[in-house]
Amino acid sequence: MEDITYYVGLVHYPVFDKNRKIVTTSITNMDVHDISRTCCAYGVRNYFVINQLESQRELFFKIMAFWQSDTGKNYQPDRAEALKTTVFLDSYQDAINYIKNQEKIYPVMITTTARQRKNQLRYDSFNSVINNDTLRNNPEAPAKPVLLIFGTGYGLADEIHEKADYVLTPIESRSEYNHLSVRSAVAIVLDRLIPKNKGGINGHIASCKSRTN
Amino acid sequence: MEDITYYVGLVHYPVFDKNRKIVTTSITNMDVHDISRTCCAYGVRNYFVINQLESQRELFFKIMAFWQSDTGKNYQPDRAEALKTTVFLDSYQDAINYIKNQEKIYPVMITTTARQRKNQLRYDSFNSVINNDTLRNNPEAPAKPVLLIFGTGYGLADEIHEKADYVLTPIESRSEYNHLSVRSAVAIVLDRLIPKNKGGINGHIASCKSRTN
Repeated sequence: MEDITYYVGLVHYPVFDKNRKIVTTSITNMDVHDISRTCCAYGVRNYFVINQLESQRELFFKIMAFWQSDTGKNYQPDRAEALKTTVFLDSYQDAINYIKNQEKIYPVMITTTARQRKNQLRYDSFNSVINNDTLRNNPEAPAKPVLLIFGTGYGLADEIHEKADYVLTPIESRSEYNHLSVRSAVAIVLDRLIPKNKGGINGHIASCKSRTN
Repeated sequence: MEDITYYVGLVHYPVFDKNRKIVTTSITNMDVHDISRTCCAYGVRNYFVINQLESQRELFFKIMAFWQSDTGKNYQPDRAEALKTTVFLDSYQDAINYIKNQEKIYPVMITTTARQRKNQLRYDSFNSVINNDTLRNNPEAPAKPVLLIFGTGYGLADEIHEKADYVLTPIESRSEYNHLSVRSAVAIVLDRLIPKNKGGINGHIASCKSRTN
Protein backbone atom coordinates (compact mmCIF):
# COMPACT_ATOMS: atom_id res chain seq x y z
CA MET A 1 0.00 0.00 0.00
CA GLU A 2 1.45 3.29 -1.09
CA ASP A 3 1.58 6.28 1.27
CA ILE A 4 -0.92 8.96 0.41
CA THR A 5 -0.44 12.72 0.70
CA TYR A 6 -3.40 14.34 2.42
CA TYR A 7 -4.81 17.85 2.14
CA VAL A 8 -7.67 19.33 4.18
CA GLY A 9 -10.05 22.07 3.04
CA LEU A 10 -12.47 23.95 5.30
CA VAL A 11 -15.24 25.44 3.16
CA HIS A 12 -17.14 28.60 4.17
CA TYR A 13 -19.13 28.82 0.90
CA PRO A 14 -21.36 27.25 -0.34
CA VAL A 15 -22.68 25.84 2.96
CA PHE A 16 -26.09 25.58 4.60
CA ASP A 17 -27.24 27.75 7.48
CA LYS A 18 -29.68 26.40 10.09
CA ASN A 19 -32.63 27.14 7.79
CA ARG A 20 -31.02 25.21 4.89
CA LYS A 21 -30.26 28.44 3.02
CA ILE A 22 -26.92 28.62 1.15
CA VAL A 23 -24.64 31.14 2.84
CA THR A 24 -21.03 32.17 3.36
CA THR A 25 -19.96 31.63 6.98
CA SER A 26 -17.30 33.66 8.78
CA ILE A 27 -13.81 32.51 9.54
CA THR A 28 -13.17 31.90 13.24
CA ASN A 29 -9.82 32.13 15.00
CA MET A 30 -10.35 28.67 16.51
CA ASP A 31 -11.11 27.01 13.16
CA VAL A 32 -7.89 28.43 11.79
CA HIS A 33 -5.46 27.43 14.55
CA ASP A 34 -7.11 24.31 16.04
CA ILE A 35 -7.49 22.61 12.68
CA SER A 36 -3.97 23.74 11.65
CA ARG A 37 -2.58 21.98 14.71
CA THR A 38 -4.53 18.79 14.01
CA CYS A 39 -3.41 18.82 10.36
CA CYS A 40 0.24 19.26 11.35
CA ALA A 41 0.09 16.45 13.89
CA TYR A 42 -1.36 14.14 11.23
CA GLY A 43 1.19 15.11 8.57
CA VAL A 44 -1.34 16.83 6.27
CA ARG A 45 0.62 18.73 3.62
CA ASN A 46 -1.57 21.85 3.50
CA TYR A 47 -4.70 23.04 5.26
CA PHE A 48 -6.84 25.31 3.08
CA VAL A 49 -9.16 27.87 4.65
CA ILE A 50 -11.64 28.49 1.84
CA ASN A 51 -13.70 31.68 1.68
CA GLN A 52 -14.34 33.93 -1.30
CA LEU A 53 -15.00 37.19 0.58
CA GLU A 54 -12.33 39.89 0.61
CA SER A 55 -13.31 40.87 4.18
CA GLN A 56 -12.69 37.29 5.30
CA ARG A 57 -9.33 37.16 3.53
CA GLU A 58 -8.35 40.23 5.55
CA LEU A 59 -9.58 38.59 8.76
CA PHE A 60 -7.59 35.44 7.98
CA PHE A 61 -4.37 37.42 7.53
CA LYS A 62 -5.06 39.34 10.75
CA ILE A 63 -5.38 36.03 12.63
CA MET A 64 -2.20 34.71 10.96
CA ALA A 65 -0.31 37.92 11.72
CA PHE A 66 -1.31 37.78 15.38
CA TRP A 67 -0.16 34.19 15.96
CA GLN A 68 3.04 34.75 13.99
CA SER A 69 3.86 38.04 15.79
CA ASP A 70 6.22 38.11 18.77
CA THR A 71 3.21 38.42 21.09
CA GLY A 72 1.47 35.42 19.54
CA LYS A 73 4.63 33.29 19.37
CA ASN A 74 5.47 34.09 22.96
CA TYR A 75 1.96 33.16 24.08
CA GLN A 76 1.67 29.95 22.05
CA PRO A 77 4.65 29.07 19.81
CA ASP A 78 2.98 25.90 18.54
CA ARG A 79 0.20 27.85 16.89
CA ALA A 80 2.64 29.90 14.78
CA GLU A 81 4.42 26.70 13.79
CA ALA A 82 1.21 24.94 12.78
CA LEU A 83 0.05 27.88 10.65
CA LYS A 84 3.02 27.54 8.30
CA THR A 85 1.17 24.98 6.20
CA THR A 86 -2.17 26.86 6.27
CA VAL A 87 -3.26 28.59 3.07
CA PHE A 88 -6.19 30.90 2.30
CA LEU A 89 -8.04 30.22 -0.97
CA ASP A 90 -11.21 31.50 -2.66
CA SER A 91 -12.87 28.22 -3.61
CA TYR A 92 -12.55 24.44 -3.49
CA GLN A 93 -11.71 24.57 -7.20
CA ASP A 94 -8.69 26.70 -6.26
CA ALA A 95 -7.70 24.04 -3.74
CA ILE A 96 -7.77 21.40 -6.47
CA ASN A 97 -5.63 23.60 -8.72
CA TYR A 98 -3.22 24.36 -5.89
CA ILE A 99 -2.68 20.64 -5.35
CA LYS A 100 -2.33 19.99 -9.09
CA ASN A 101 0.40 22.67 -9.29
CA GLN A 102 2.22 21.32 -6.27
CA GLU A 103 1.92 17.58 -6.93
CA LYS A 104 1.67 17.60 -10.76
CA ILE A 105 -1.41 15.38 -10.45
CA TYR A 106 -5.06 16.03 -9.59
CA PRO A 107 -6.25 14.89 -6.15
CA VAL A 108 -9.05 12.52 -5.28
CA MET A 109 -11.72 14.84 -3.83
CA ILE A 110 -13.58 13.48 -0.78
CA THR A 111 -16.31 15.40 1.02
CA THR A 112 -17.65 14.86 4.53
CA THR A 113 -21.14 15.27 5.98
CA ALA A 114 -23.15 14.53 9.11
CA ARG A 115 -26.06 13.44 6.89
CA GLN A 116 -26.89 10.17 5.17
CA ARG A 117 -26.45 10.24 1.38
CA LYS A 118 -26.45 7.56 -1.29
CA ASN A 119 -23.25 5.61 -2.02
CA GLN A 120 -21.17 6.99 0.84
CA LEU A 121 -17.62 5.72 1.25
CA ARG A 122 -17.24 3.64 4.42
CA TYR A 123 -14.20 4.03 6.66
CA ASP A 124 -13.52 0.31 6.54
CA SER A 125 -13.33 0.28 2.75
CA PHE A 126 -11.46 3.58 2.46
CA ASN A 127 -7.99 2.10 2.04
CA SER A 128 -8.86 -0.38 -0.67
CA VAL A 129 -11.03 2.09 -2.61
CA ILE A 130 -8.52 4.93 -2.39
CA ASN A 131 -5.52 2.83 -3.25
CA ASN A 132 -7.39 1.50 -6.22
CA ASP A 133 -8.49 4.98 -7.25
CA THR A 134 -5.12 6.63 -6.78
CA LEU A 135 -3.50 4.07 -9.04
CA ARG A 136 -6.26 3.34 -11.51
CA ASN A 137 -4.99 5.26 -14.54
CA ASN A 138 -1.49 3.91 -14.62
CA PRO A 139 0.16 1.54 -12.17
CA GLU A 140 3.50 3.34 -12.70
CA ALA A 141 2.05 6.78 -11.87
CA PRO A 142 2.44 8.22 -8.37
CA ALA A 143 -0.54 7.78 -6.04
CA LYS A 144 -3.01 10.63 -6.26
CA PRO A 145 -3.13 12.92 -3.25
CA VAL A 146 -6.39 13.09 -1.29
CA LEU A 147 -8.26 16.33 -0.60
CA LEU A 148 -10.65 15.97 2.35
CA ILE A 149 -13.31 18.69 2.41
CA PHE A 150 -15.20 19.76 5.54
CA GLY A 151 -18.04 22.26 5.76
CA THR A 152 -18.78 24.99 8.28
CA GLY A 153 -22.26 26.20 9.30
CA TYR A 154 -24.78 23.38 8.86
CA GLY A 155 -22.75 21.49 6.30
CA LEU A 156 -21.58 21.55 2.69
CA ALA A 157 -24.05 22.42 -0.08
CA ASP A 158 -25.15 19.49 -2.26
CA GLU A 159 -23.30 20.87 -5.30
CA ILE A 160 -19.94 20.19 -3.62
CA HIS A 161 -20.85 16.61 -2.77
CA GLU A 162 -21.96 16.14 -6.39
CA LYS A 163 -18.53 17.28 -7.63
CA ALA A 164 -16.67 14.98 -5.23
CA ASP A 165 -15.18 11.61 -6.19
CA TYR A 166 -16.43 10.20 -2.88
CA VAL A 167 -18.56 11.31 0.08
CA LEU A 168 -17.50 9.77 3.41
CA THR A 169 -20.12 8.17 5.66
CA PRO A 170 -21.05 10.31 8.68
CA ILE A 171 -19.26 9.76 11.99
CA GLU A 172 -21.79 7.56 13.82
CA SER A 173 -23.18 9.31 16.88
CA ARG A 174 -23.25 7.13 20.02
CA SER A 175 -26.34 8.97 21.31
CA GLU A 176 -29.33 10.86 19.97
CA TYR A 177 -27.16 13.97 19.72
CA ASN A 178 -25.46 14.34 16.37
CA HIS A 179 -23.80 17.71 16.18
CA LEU A 180 -20.03 17.54 16.52
CA SER A 181 -18.05 20.72 15.89
CA VAL A 182 -16.10 20.73 12.63
CA ARG A 183 -12.92 20.92 14.72
CA SER A 184 -13.78 17.62 16.41
CA ALA A 185 -14.88 16.06 13.11
CA VAL A 186 -11.56 16.89 11.41
CA ALA A 187 -9.64 15.33 14.32
CA ILE A 188 -11.71 12.12 14.25
CA VAL A 189 -11.60 11.72 10.46
CA LEU A 190 -7.82 12.23 10.23
CA ASP A 191 -7.27 9.82 13.13
CA ARG A 192 -9.36 7.18 11.38
CA LEU A 193 -7.85 7.58 7.91
CA ILE A 194 -4.16 8.34 8.30
CA PRO A 195 -2.03 5.34 9.23
CA LYS A 196 -0.08 5.40 12.48
CA ASN A 197 3.70 5.55 12.69
CA LYS A 198 4.19 7.34 9.41
CA GLY A 199 6.95 9.90 9.72
CA GLY A 200 5.62 12.26 7.10
CA ILE A 201 3.40 11.30 4.24
CA ASN A 202 4.78 10.29 0.84
CA GLY A 203 8.22 11.55 1.76
CA HIS A 204 6.97 15.01 2.73
CA ILE A 205 7.55 15.66 6.38
CA ALA A 206 5.07 18.40 7.22
CA SER A 207 7.15 21.53 7.70
CA CYS A 208 5.62 22.25 11.10
CA LYS A 209 7.50 20.84 14.09
CA SER A 210 6.60 20.83 17.74
CA ARG A 211 8.76 23.02 19.93
CA THR A 212 7.25 22.21 23.27
CA ASN A 213 6.99 18.45 23.36
CA MET B 1 -18.43 -7.31 27.38
CA GLU B 2 -20.49 -5.03 29.53
CA ASP B 3 -21.29 -1.46 28.47
CA ILE B 4 -19.35 1.16 30.34
CA THR B 5 -20.58 4.58 31.46
CA TYR B 6 -18.08 7.29 30.59
CA TYR B 7 -17.38 10.64 32.22
CA VAL B 8 -14.93 13.30 31.00
CA GLY B 9 -13.10 15.84 33.18
CA LEU B 10 -11.19 18.87 31.87
CA VAL B 11 -8.68 19.95 34.52
CA HIS B 12 -7.47 23.57 34.84
CA TYR B 13 -5.45 22.93 38.03
CA PRO B 14 -2.90 21.48 38.67
CA VAL B 15 -1.47 21.70 35.14
CA PHE B 16 1.88 22.75 33.65
CA ASP B 17 2.46 26.03 31.85
CA LYS B 18 4.99 26.26 29.01
CA ASN B 19 7.85 26.64 31.52
CA ARG B 20 6.77 23.49 33.44
CA LYS B 21 5.45 25.55 36.33
CA ILE B 22 2.22 24.37 38.03
CA VAL B 23 -0.58 26.84 37.31
CA THR B 24 -4.34 27.25 37.08
CA THR B 25 -5.43 27.91 33.48
CA SER B 26 -8.48 29.90 32.46
CA ILE B 27 -11.71 28.46 31.19
CA THR B 28 -12.38 29.16 27.51
CA ASN B 29 -15.77 29.38 25.85
CA MET B 30 -14.63 26.91 23.17
CA ASP B 31 -13.43 24.30 25.68
CA VAL B 32 -16.81 24.45 27.35
CA HIS B 33 -19.08 24.08 24.33
CA ASP B 34 -16.92 22.15 21.84
CA ILE B 35 -16.09 19.43 24.34
CA SER B 36 -19.72 19.37 25.58
CA ARG B 37 -20.85 18.65 22.03
CA THR B 38 -18.29 15.88 21.56
CA CYS B 39 -19.25 14.32 24.90
CA CYS B 40 -22.95 14.38 24.01
CA ALA B 41 -22.35 12.81 20.62
CA TYR B 42 -20.38 9.99 22.26
CA GLY B 43 -22.94 9.37 25.00
CA VAL B 44 -20.73 10.58 27.87
CA ARG B 45 -22.93 10.92 30.97
CA ASN B 46 -21.39 14.13 32.34
CA TYR B 47 -18.63 16.49 31.27
CA PHE B 48 -16.89 18.15 34.22
CA VAL B 49 -15.18 21.52 33.81
CA ILE B 50 -12.76 21.52 36.75
CA ASN B 51 -11.36 24.76 38.17
CA GLN B 52 -11.06 25.80 41.81
CA LEU B 53 -11.14 29.59 41.29
CA GLU B 54 -14.28 31.52 42.16
CA SER B 55 -13.66 33.94 39.25
CA GLN B 56 -13.59 30.98 36.87
CA ARG B 57 -16.80 29.56 38.32
CA GLU B 58 -18.44 32.90 37.55
CA LEU B 59 -17.03 32.84 34.01
CA PHE B 60 -18.34 29.30 33.50
CA PHE B 61 -21.86 30.30 34.51
CA LYS B 62 -21.69 33.38 32.27
CA ILE B 63 -20.80 31.14 29.33
CA MET B 64 -23.59 28.69 30.25
CA ALA B 65 -26.11 31.52 30.67
CA PHE B 66 -25.24 32.96 27.26
CA TRP B 67 -25.70 29.70 25.34
CA GLN B 68 -28.87 28.85 27.25
CA SER B 69 -30.39 32.34 26.79
CA ASP B 70 -32.82 33.05 23.94
CA THR B 71 -30.01 34.78 22.03
CA GLY B 72 -27.66 31.83 22.41
CA LYS B 73 -30.34 29.23 21.65
CA ASN B 74 -31.44 31.13 18.59
CA TYR B 75 -27.87 31.41 17.35
CA GLN B 76 -26.89 27.79 18.05
CA PRO B 77 -29.55 25.56 19.67
CA ASP B 78 -27.23 22.54 19.73
CA ARG B 79 -24.82 24.23 22.10
CA ALA B 80 -27.52 24.83 24.73
CA GLU B 81 -28.60 21.22 24.39
CA ALA B 82 -25.08 19.86 24.78
CA LEU B 83 -24.42 21.94 27.90
CA LYS B 84 -27.21 20.17 29.82
CA THR B 85 -24.79 17.45 30.90
CA THR B 86 -21.90 19.84 31.66
CA VAL B 87 -21.05 20.42 35.33
CA PHE B 88 -18.59 22.81 37.01
CA LEU B 89 -16.52 21.32 39.86
CA ASP B 90 -13.60 22.47 42.02
CA SER B 91 -11.29 19.47 41.75
CA TYR B 92 -10.87 16.04 40.20
CA GLN B 93 -11.57 14.57 43.65
CA ASP B 94 -14.98 16.28 43.47
CA ALA B 95 -15.52 14.61 40.10
CA ILE B 96 -14.83 11.21 41.64
CA ASN B 97 -17.26 11.93 44.46
CA TYR B 98 -19.90 13.21 42.03
CA ILE B 99 -19.70 9.93 40.12
CA LYS B 100 -19.79 7.88 43.33
CA ASN B 101 -22.97 9.69 44.42
CA GLN B 102 -24.61 9.24 41.04
CA GLU B 103 -23.55 5.67 40.27
CA LYS B 104 -23.18 4.29 43.82
CA ILE B 105 -19.74 3.02 42.83
CA TYR B 106 -16.31 4.66 42.41
CA PRO B 107 -15.06 5.13 38.84
CA VAL B 108 -11.88 3.87 37.26
CA MET B 109 -9.79 7.04 36.87
CA ILE B 110 -7.82 7.32 33.62
CA THR B 111 -5.58 10.27 32.78
CA THR B 112 -4.29 11.35 29.37
CA THR B 113 -1.02 12.97 28.32
CA ALA B 114 0.99 13.88 25.22
CA ARG B 115 4.13 12.62 26.99
CA GLN B 116 5.66 9.18 27.38
CA ARG B 117 5.37 7.72 30.88
CA LYS B 118 6.00 4.29 32.36
CA ASN B 119 3.27 1.63 32.18
CA GLN B 120 0.86 3.54 29.98
CA LEU B 121 -2.39 1.86 28.98
CA ARG B 122 -2.46 1.06 25.25
CA TYR B 123 -5.59 1.65 23.22
CA ASP B 124 -5.53 -1.90 21.89
CA SER B 125 -5.56 -3.38 25.38
CA PHE B 126 -8.05 -0.87 26.81
CA ASN B 127 -11.13 -3.06 26.51
CA SER B 128 -9.69 -6.13 28.14
CA VAL B 129 -7.99 -4.20 30.95
CA ILE B 130 -11.00 -2.04 31.71
CA ASN B 131 -13.49 -4.87 31.58
CA ASN B 132 -11.29 -6.81 33.91
CA ASP B 133 -10.86 -3.84 36.23
CA THR B 134 -14.49 -2.83 36.29
CA LEU B 135 -15.51 -6.31 37.36
CA ARG B 136 -12.59 -7.44 39.46
CA ASN B 137 -14.05 -7.02 42.95
CA ASN B 138 -17.23 -8.95 42.41
CA PRO B 139 -18.49 -10.50 39.20
CA GLU B 140 -22.09 -9.72 40.25
CA ALA B 141 -21.36 -6.00 40.81
CA PRO B 142 -22.17 -3.46 38.11
CA ALA B 143 -19.24 -2.40 35.88
CA LYS B 144 -17.37 0.59 37.25
CA PRO B 145 -17.84 3.81 35.30
CA VAL B 146 -14.76 5.34 33.68
CA LEU B 147 -13.59 8.91 34.31
CA LEU B 148 -11.28 10.18 31.54
CA ILE B 149 -9.23 13.18 32.62
CA PHE B 150 -7.71 15.70 30.19
CA GLY B 151 -5.41 18.60 31.02
CA THR B 152 -5.32 22.16 29.73
CA GLY B 153 -2.19 24.33 29.38
CA TYR B 154 0.85 22.10 28.82
CA GLY B 155 -0.67 19.03 30.43
CA LEU B 156 -1.69 17.51 33.75
CA ALA B 157 0.67 17.72 36.73
CA ASP B 158 2.41 14.47 37.68
CA GLU B 159 0.45 14.22 40.95
CA ILE B 160 -2.78 13.58 39.02
CA HIS B 161 -1.21 10.83 36.92
CA GLU B 162 0.10 9.25 40.12
CA LYS B 163 -3.44 9.14 41.57
CA ALA B 164 -4.91 7.62 38.41
CA ASP B 165 -5.66 3.92 37.98
CA TYR B 166 -4.29 4.13 34.43
CA VAL B 167 -2.53 6.66 32.20
CA LEU B 168 -3.40 6.30 28.50
CA THR B 169 -0.59 6.22 25.92
CA PRO B 170 -0.23 9.46 23.95
CA ILE B 171 -1.99 9.85 20.62
CA GLU B 172 0.84 9.04 18.21
CA SER B 173 1.72 12.04 16.07
CA ARG B 174 2.11 11.25 12.36
CA SER B 175 4.72 14.01 11.96
CA GLU B 176 7.34 15.81 14.02
CA TYR B 177 4.62 18.10 15.33
CA ASN B 178 2.99 16.85 18.52
CA HIS B 179 0.72 19.50 19.90
CA LEU B 180 -2.96 18.75 19.37
CA SER B 181 -5.50 20.99 21.05
CA VAL B 182 -7.28 19.40 24.02
CA ARG B 183 -10.51 19.75 22.03
CA SER B 184 -9.08 17.55 19.26
CA ALA B 185 -7.58 15.12 21.77
CA VAL B 186 -10.93 14.57 23.51
CA ALA B 187 -12.62 13.87 20.17
CA ILE B 188 -9.95 11.34 19.12
CA VAL B 189 -9.83 9.53 22.48
CA LEU B 190 -13.62 9.16 22.72
CA ASP B 191 -13.80 7.96 19.12
CA ARG B 192 -11.18 5.31 19.84
CA LEU B 193 -12.59 4.09 23.15
CA ILE B 194 -16.36 4.21 22.92
CA PRO B 195 -17.90 1.40 20.86
CA LYS B 196 -19.95 2.31 17.81
CA ASN B 197 -23.69 1.75 17.53
CA LYS B 198 -24.37 2.03 21.24
CA GLY B 199 -27.61 3.92 21.79
CA GLY B 200 -26.64 5.35 25.13
CA ILE B 201 -24.19 3.83 27.55
CA ASN B 202 -25.22 1.37 30.25
CA GLY B 203 -28.86 2.20 29.73
CA HIS B 204 -28.35 5.95 30.15
CA ILE B 205 -29.21 7.78 26.96
CA ALA B 206 -27.35 11.07 27.27
CA SER B 207 -30.01 13.69 27.94
CA CYS B 208 -28.78 15.90 25.12
CA LYS B 209 -30.48 15.38 21.78
CA SER B 210 -29.75 16.91 18.43
CA ARG B 211 -32.36 19.32 17.15
CA THR B 212 -30.85 20.11 13.80
CA ASN B 213 -29.86 16.78 12.33
